[in-house]
Amino acid sequence: MESLKIRPQIQEIIDEFLQEQKPILDGVSPAAGQMVDFAKEFLSGGKRLRAAFCYWGYKASGGSDETEILRAASALEFLQGCALVHDDVMDASDTRRGKPAIHKRFENLHETGSFAGNKELFGVGGAVLLGDLMLSWADQMLLTSGFESAALKRGKDLYDLMRTELMAGQYLDLYNQAKRGGDVNESFNVIRFKSAKYSIERPLQLGGKLAVDDPLLNKTLSDFGLPLGEAFQLRDDLLGVFGDPEITGKPAGDDLREGKRTVLIEIAFEKANPAHKKLLDDLFGKATLSLSEVNAMREVLEETGAHNQVESLIEQLFERSNKALFESNVTSEAKNALAELAVAATSRRL
Amino acid sequence: MESLKIRPQIQEIIDEFLQEQKPILDGVSPAAGQMVDFAKEFLSGGKRLRAAFCYWGYKASGGSDETEILRAASALEFLQGCALVHDDVMDASDTRRGKPAIHKRFENLHETGSFAGNKELFGVGGAVLLGDLMLSWADQMLLTSGFESAALKRGKDLYDLMRTELMAGQYLDLYNQAKRGGDVNESFNVIRFKSAKYSIERPLQLGGKLAVDDPLLNKTLSDFGLPLGEAFQLRDDLLGVFGDPEITGKPAGDDLREGKRTVLIEIAFEKANPAHKKLLDDLFGKATLSLSEVNAMREVLEETGAHNQVESLIEQLFERSNKALFESNVTSEAKNALAELAVAATSRRL
Repeated sequence: MESLKIRPQIQEIIDEFLQEQKPILDGVSPAAGQMVDFAKEFLSGGKRLRAAFCYWGYKASGGSDETEILRAASALEFLQGCALVHDDVMDASDTRRGKPAIHKRFENLHETGSFAGNKELFGVGGAVLLGDLMLSWADQMLLTSGFESAALKRGKDLYDLMRTELMAGQYLDLYNQAKRGGDVNESFNVIRFKSAKYSIERPLQLGGKLAVDDPLLNKTLSDFGLPLGEAFQLRDDLLGVFGDPEITGKPAGDDLREGKRTVLIEIAFEKANPAHKKLLDDLFGKATLSLSEVNAMREVLEETGAHNQVESLIEQLFERSNKALFESNVTSEAKNALAELAVAATSRRL
Repeated sequence: MESLKIRPQIQEIIDEFLQEQKPILDGVSPAAGQMVDFAKEFLSGGKRLRAAFCYWGYKASGGSDETEILRAASALEFLQGCALVHDDVMDASDTRRGKPAIHKRFENLHETGSFAGNKELFGVGGAVLLGDLMLSWADQMLLTSGFESAALKRGKDLYDLMRTELMAGQYLDLYNQAKRGGDVNESFNVIRFKSAKYSIERPLQLGGKLAVDDPLLNKTLSDFGLPLGEAFQLRDDLLGVFGDPEITGKPAGDDLREGKRTVLIEIAFEKANPAHKKLLDDLFGKATLSLSEVNAMREVLEETGAHNQVESLIEQLFERSNKALFESNVTSEAKNALAELAVAATSRRL
């Protein structure tokens, strides 16, 4: 796929960066050096969607410095690494892409080494610190991308905003879940800040800011990126309930077990008849949900029309995004790549 | 104290910065806005040692931009905020400066609001995210301090190294504790990276780098700062065992309960006779240690000579540091302030 052609280069830049960090951590202790190995493994593969949106946001804004933008875009993969590692700690989620989560990796180290003390706490500690490292390395990478200082200043300001929104959005997600949900509007706010802005709108704008100081272009990238990002997260929410474990790398219906207050779920609660309501109240957020219970909940999501409604929301948002892209005056190369990315981010992978 | 005269200004800068962040988080949700209130409370008061060393490292290097260096120095207080909040999560330590730790604050929110789900996990989640915010705000503050770009570049490179060393040192601390300690050398490595460099040497050098590009001066600040930082941490380790809870804000002998593998403890293990050894093996790291058990361990630390040996190490390191300062050719104003800070950082507060 043309729009994702940068993946091998992104991987190379990440690996090279980690290689440079390794001696610093080894210098503290070989035990600390092992954190770099964990990071390297964790940051291998992945879709690189955020890096790609940043890259194409830059291209769409007329940027032409390949080396610089590839390095800046790679920074987003470190930020995402931190978000995922810390997210798994906060959710006590034991797997990630079908493999043990990072806190589990540290727990295993504790177990196989017959270490003293509480292994769970050691796992959490290792994961919190590795996430902190990745968060630190992200801005280090951005600031050493090689752009001139005015471009870096514009980019860093946007990046700062993006980070703060991400963490606030993550917290709102935890909070809404603990408050047993709010309403459809509130769940949309989680989507917007935790995901839509962070995954698509802001990466595009970061690329744009690194290329040029142009508020109008910044607005265009938002008109395209924000609805697309919302559609992307709605698709992800559907996958969390209806997705194939082979593809998602998570057990079937995992979001239902976790009690994630998604737009899908909020709509179902809103439209539920008394029988649906009882079933949702009994099963939603139950950690030990069986497959037949997952299926019963899936039926409620169909019968309330929640599933269909989310599909049609995705379609509307996608159309709005697509329209903004085609009405914009970005280069046709960038237009094609962004259109391709938009499809990749929102297509059915059920 | 002349050397700490910047404290009210640092507080003002921190509060102003948080005030600017507040609408961004409130925009995500008022619930997220509350994180700013927690941060504000957590970052109130404190010794501001790191900010002061950064400030005086700058002055010692001939710097004269007050506004810029005060803001850059304040960044270190955010970094320290992250380190403490995450540290308390990793240690499952419930109090900080005699008040509930941040994860406990989020737990209380969960409890008083009768939220759903596991309150401990919610507490950890909130604290991980607030720490992430503070880590992010730290470099945001540094990069928006107003220095020209060459100074910022020098400063940021040093800052990047400092952050990585800090996290690697924190991990080594967890690791050594889990491995039931290593030896005196290894425990010195923890001190060096987790504390001496991070709390004193690197803040001084950060100030220096922001003022001027002078490798020789950089070396001088290290010759002064590193031994002082080691003495500072050794003093802190003594306080963790012998300190007055009224002053330390922690229960008496808390480090013994936690099983912290400090230099003090490693020396005691090395010098222990069989009776001492048995007592240490039985009691060290026992979470439910009574006051009389704490006292029994304190006696072992006296009888093995570990306490005295650490006192004399502090003295030697302090002398070495002091000599480097007085042989340097920094201005006499900076010399006096740094000498004053050195005493404040290592004096007996038992």
